[in-house]
Amino acid sequence: MSRVICDQSVSLDGFSAGPNQSLENPLGENGLRVHEWMFVTNPWRMSQGLPAVPETADDAVAGDLMSNAGVGAVIMGRNMFGPIRGGWDRSWKGWWGDDPPYHAPVFVLTHHPRDPVPMQGGTTFYFVTDGVESALEQAREAAGDKDIRIGGGASTVQQFIRAGHLDELHLHLVPIILGAGQRLLENVGDPKMTPVSVIASPTVTHIRYSIERQ
Amino acid sequence: MSRVICDQSVSLDGFSAGPNQSLENPLGENGLRVHEWMFVTNPWRMSQGLPAVPETADDAVAGDLMSNAGVGAVIMGRNMFGPIRGGWDRSWKGWWGDDPPYHAPVFVLTHHPRDPVPMQGGTTFYFVTDGVESALEQAREAAGDKDIRIGGGASTVQQFIRAGHLDELHLHLVPIILGAGQRLLENVGDPKMTPVSVIASPTVTHIRYSIERQ
Repeated sequence: MSRVICDQSVSLDGFSAGPNQSLENPLGENGLRVHEWMFVTNPWRMSQGLPAVPETADDAVAGDLMSNAGVGAVIMGRNMFGPIRGGWDRSWKGWWGDDPPYHAPVFVLTHHPRDPVPMQGGTTFYFVTDGVESALEQAREAAGDKDIRIGGGASTVQQFIRAGHLDELHLHLVPIILGAGQRLLENVGDPKMTPVSVIASPTVTHIRYSIERQ
Repeated sequence: MSRVICDQSVSLDGFSAGPNQSLENPLGENGLRVHEWMFVTNPWRMSQGLPAVPETADDAVAGDLMSNAGVGAVIMGRNMFGPIRGGWDRSWKGWWGDDPPYHAPVFVLTHHPRDPVPMQGGTTFYFVTDGVESALEQAREAAGDKDIRIGGGASTVQQFIRAGHLDELHLHLVPIILGAGQRLLENVGDPKMTPVSVIASPTVTHIRYSIERQ
């Protein structure tokens, strides 16, 4: 059965992005540090044409994430899709180039209507202006039996947890202290969570939590 | 060689205690939830004369903690020792009864001098009025080759991390959201941390981080 899942890398002090996000700095100051573990994995290096490095447990996790295997639809907030606020600049097609890593319909939460944007590799960006519940309904229809991934950012993830819609939260716990930024787990209510799997690499601890559906 | 270690249970949103600590509520509102995992382990139940329950990975962790094995001295903040502020009420001898679970000298950071308080089971409370460095020096002398445990609370732990004195932080990551309280990992600078062991139980993820000495 289709689950609603979410993968988030967080610092040990709970930040999924740094402060002061901008076009130059989409993850905020120092926010890239939260994702650096991925850039030293073999799946990422292969995608960039870089030579292989010794394997770690992070490789399989990054490979799963990058392939988006088993995911039939993605939902993300507008800030994750792009840095532009207000009406659309229609030349903006996301941060990910011509072939985004989603390979599935992506529903972008926004207040500003826009026609769907088909990309290479199976990704099409749809723009949803009537809220989270509508996005979820459209994603369920598109995903069929496959999972729905909540991409981010933090406030979008929080909305889904708070509404009781998230079935699994996959935390990638990175042993750095950011000290400031966007906290992932605030304003989420008091969800009942259970760790269902833990993968420990030499740097990152990957914990999958199931969340009791409300 | 003697290491400076610290065990802390934290909620998934980073709190080691709830808000509004008081005599009635030494861990703050909801703060006890962060420690509940320990109260369902067999070592704890045995200590309370309760019948055994099925074993989990939490049992060994709780047993190590409760025995304080390998620890030759403990340092704690005054608020962890008791709820009294200002000068001492000399009838107060900690939260832990006649036989505290430390079985070693305990150095309490305070601004108010007090004679040492010997307890049963090898615990003696010493009161250190000349700061963290002095407490650490006295603890090193007392501990010999054994480890020094930083007991807490959060602000004491933060001081030791910030000063570069903590060698290992053992986080017991509890899958609850407190939403408010005392954050463990703020004002700690940017320590270089590496996970050296992970133990996953059905509820808690126990991660040991080594910290590069500065």
